[in-house]
Amino acid sequence: MEKPVIIGVGYTRIGEHWEKSLRDLAVEAALMALDNAGVNRVDAIYVSNMMSGALQDQEHLGSLIATYLGLKGTPACKVEAACASGGMAIHQAFLAVSSGYYDTVLIVGVEKMTDKLTSEVTFALAMAEDREYVVSTGATFVGLNALLYRLYLTKFNVGQKSIAKFPVIAHENALNAPHAQLKRKISVEDVLSSPIIADPIRLLECAPIGDGAAALVISSPEVAKESPKDTYIEIAGSAAATDIMSLHERLDLLTLFASVKAAQKAYKMAKVKPSDVDVLEVHDAFSILAPIALEDLGFAKKGEGWKMIENMDVSLSGKLPTNTMGGLKARGHPVGATGIYQAVDAILQLKGEAGKNQVDNPTLALLQSTGGVGGTVVVNILKRG
Amino acid sequence: MEKPVIIGVGYTRIGEHWEKSLRDLAVEAALMALDNAGVNRVDAIYVSNMMSGALQDQEHLGSLIATYLGLKGTPACKVEAACASGGMAIHQAFLAVSSGYYDTVLIVGVEKMTDKLTSEVTFALAMAEDREYVVSTGATFVGLNALLYRLYLTKFNVGQKSIAKFPVIAHENALNAPHAQLKRKISVEDVLSSPIIADPIRLLECAPIGDGAAALVISSPEVAKESPKDTYIEIAGSAAATDIMSLHERLDLLTLFASVKAAQKAYKMAKVKPSDVDVLEVHDAFSILAPIALEDLGFAKKGEGWKMIENMDVSLSGKLPTNTMGGLKARGHPVGATGIYQAVDAILQLKGEAGKNQVDNPTLALLQSTGGVGGTVVVNILKRG
Repeated sequence: MEKPVIIGVGYTRIGEHWEKSLRDLAVEAALMALDNAGVNRVDAIYVSNMMSGALQDQEHLGSLIATYLGLKGTPACKVEAACASGGMAIHQAFLAVSSGYYDTVLIVGVEKMTDKLTSEVTFALAMAEDREYVVSTGATFVGLNALLYRLYLTKFNVGQKSIAKFPVIAHENALNAPHAQLKRKISVEDVLSSPIIADPIRLLECAPIGDGAAALVISSPEVAKESPKDTYIEIAGSAAATDIMSLHERLDLLTLFASVKAAQKAYKMAKVKPSDVDVLEVHDAFSILAPIALEDLGFAKKGEGWKMIENMDVSLSGKLPTNTMGGLKARGHPVGATGIYQAVDAILQLKGEAGKNQVDNPTLALLQSTGGVGGTVVVNILKRG
Repeated sequence: MEKPVIIGVGYTRIGEHWEKSLRDLAVEAALMALDNAGVNRVDAIYVSNMMSGALQDQEHLGSLIATYLGLKGTPACKVEAACASGGMAIHQAFLAVSSGYYDTVLIVGVEKMTDKLTSEVTFALAMAEDREYVVSTGATFVGLNALLYRLYLTKFNVGQKSIAKFPVIAHENALNAPHAQLKRKISVEDVLSSPIIADPIRLLECAPIGDGAAALVISSPEVAKESPKDTYIEIAGSAAATDIMSLHERLDLLTLFASVKAAQKAYKMAKVKPSDVDVLEVHDAFSILAPIALEDLGFAKKGEGWKMIENMDVSLSGKLPTNTMGGLKARGHPVGATGIYQAVDAILQLKGEAGKNQVDNPTLALLQSTGGVGGTVVVNILKRG
């Protein structure tokens, strides 16, 4: 069966958009994607968002965004899987187009986080974890990731400076990304001397809070062939998986089971293997998640992902350029939009439109979208046709 | 193309479940559905819920419920379309199975509303409307529906007692529904002498606040045929539509455009017409929504839906038995679960398992799931094979 293709991308700059509302951002990205696709109608809309209820007192984003796009009538709903909402919305749109009932689908990922106090945003983000048994103890996501980090350093006898290189590369990449939130160079020394947020996680190892929206237009291969473009981006593989939600019930803290499972399924569907991947997007909400992702996705053996960072394999000129526009750390992490930004950044690479960050002729990209501490992971594999 | 079929149903009683958490309710309904279907594995889980973020400080229900069902690994996400979340989750599961990528899918609709103050629940429910331009003015859903009600009575020169018969029939039906929340007989006089909530809406014309969960197992026709059952419930038609979200921008307040559009599409897909429908489930959050639904879904001319109520056409012995277990008004309206309860109640009828409320040999059921004041409507048509 031929797979759905992505025919349009749109996105806003990520940052503190105090002059724009959630719907303004969503509409801006969506219109850009529709324009980029060259279509003026869609059969369905998927909105990926996690926290509009908590931060904007607003649900029913499907109807709201359809209304503000002037697309009255179009079926629309919100898809939520915590920080994996974006990857999950791509997966749902993939299924919808594959069903044959929808030919052209718009995905809009959006999150507006800077209108509230950081404490309120932290509280809202914690809704991705088990409120009754984990969050109630005072645990936060940075705290939970700190547990993984400490264990990783100890178990694999790694120095933090190897992992701290990841955000340094991310910031380097973001310098030339027009939509990135944090456009400034940092050094490993900057990272390791930045304030401790939850030991051993330093401030410069954490993704920032930001506002943003990104959008994709996905169509059936038949529709895409009617208006052929130079490049043809197929969703060659798309798979989601869950894990036991909370760390305290998992057997192995340093393997995100959902990441392994989703990746295996996506590779099989796309008929590719890790060594075929040219550009990679991993969910680096905290720096420790990068080496773990490299391992779980099959690019490094367990306990050796850090070496790919240490060796600069993940830099733009390395053998596996990763998060080429800065990833969550520097491009930014407006939660519900993040998985869509990953697709946008990968597609810019696949189409040769990545400007100064362009890597050499990539044809295959893998996107890892993670919710909670891996309670959900979605892996989408994009292929230039 | 053969359509997906529903092979299992599960549900909890609706009420004030102070002794059970949201996850307890979801698991109870899901296990019953899996047992009813006779399967012990599913390929994906869709959770329909609107307000867990606002009322339980909990998102990421996909991972949470997969965890508590012991279904680690299974892809899972939340689908939200305000009060139409349930119908929308059925639609998404319909697409997922139709895609060929998933054979057996579990849908769990759940909402837990009674742990909070009524004012907090009212605030959370209002997230289905436009917070910035409508809710900010002080409007509530009962207030918005009161506008429709007043206009309907005036424009079509109808007496309120005709419409007030609808909740009377609903309460009558709920008497024999084991899972119903409000099991007591009421009269038209009771309705019209109950307190005014928003003029002209009376207390006994409003659906109650409640907790509950309902679940369905949906499979491909191929899988269903492997373990044949006496009855075979096909999702013959499934369609969603949106409308301009807020009333003040609509041209015609008394027609829910999304309801008309979704119904037309679903009828076409199912190759049936309104007169083929044997049992009906409408979204009667307020009594006025019943006559409007009867009109929009093609059972009555515009302005004449009230006559079907006045004539008792919608009662169990009428020509179009509607909300046969009490509907939102009396069976109950735990928001994210409501659209799933509609399917459960219709399937009990189609399978001849509706007990004292059984209508004579129905083969076709139509379910209308509405979000906001019709900002989203999903219509699913179920057919006994």
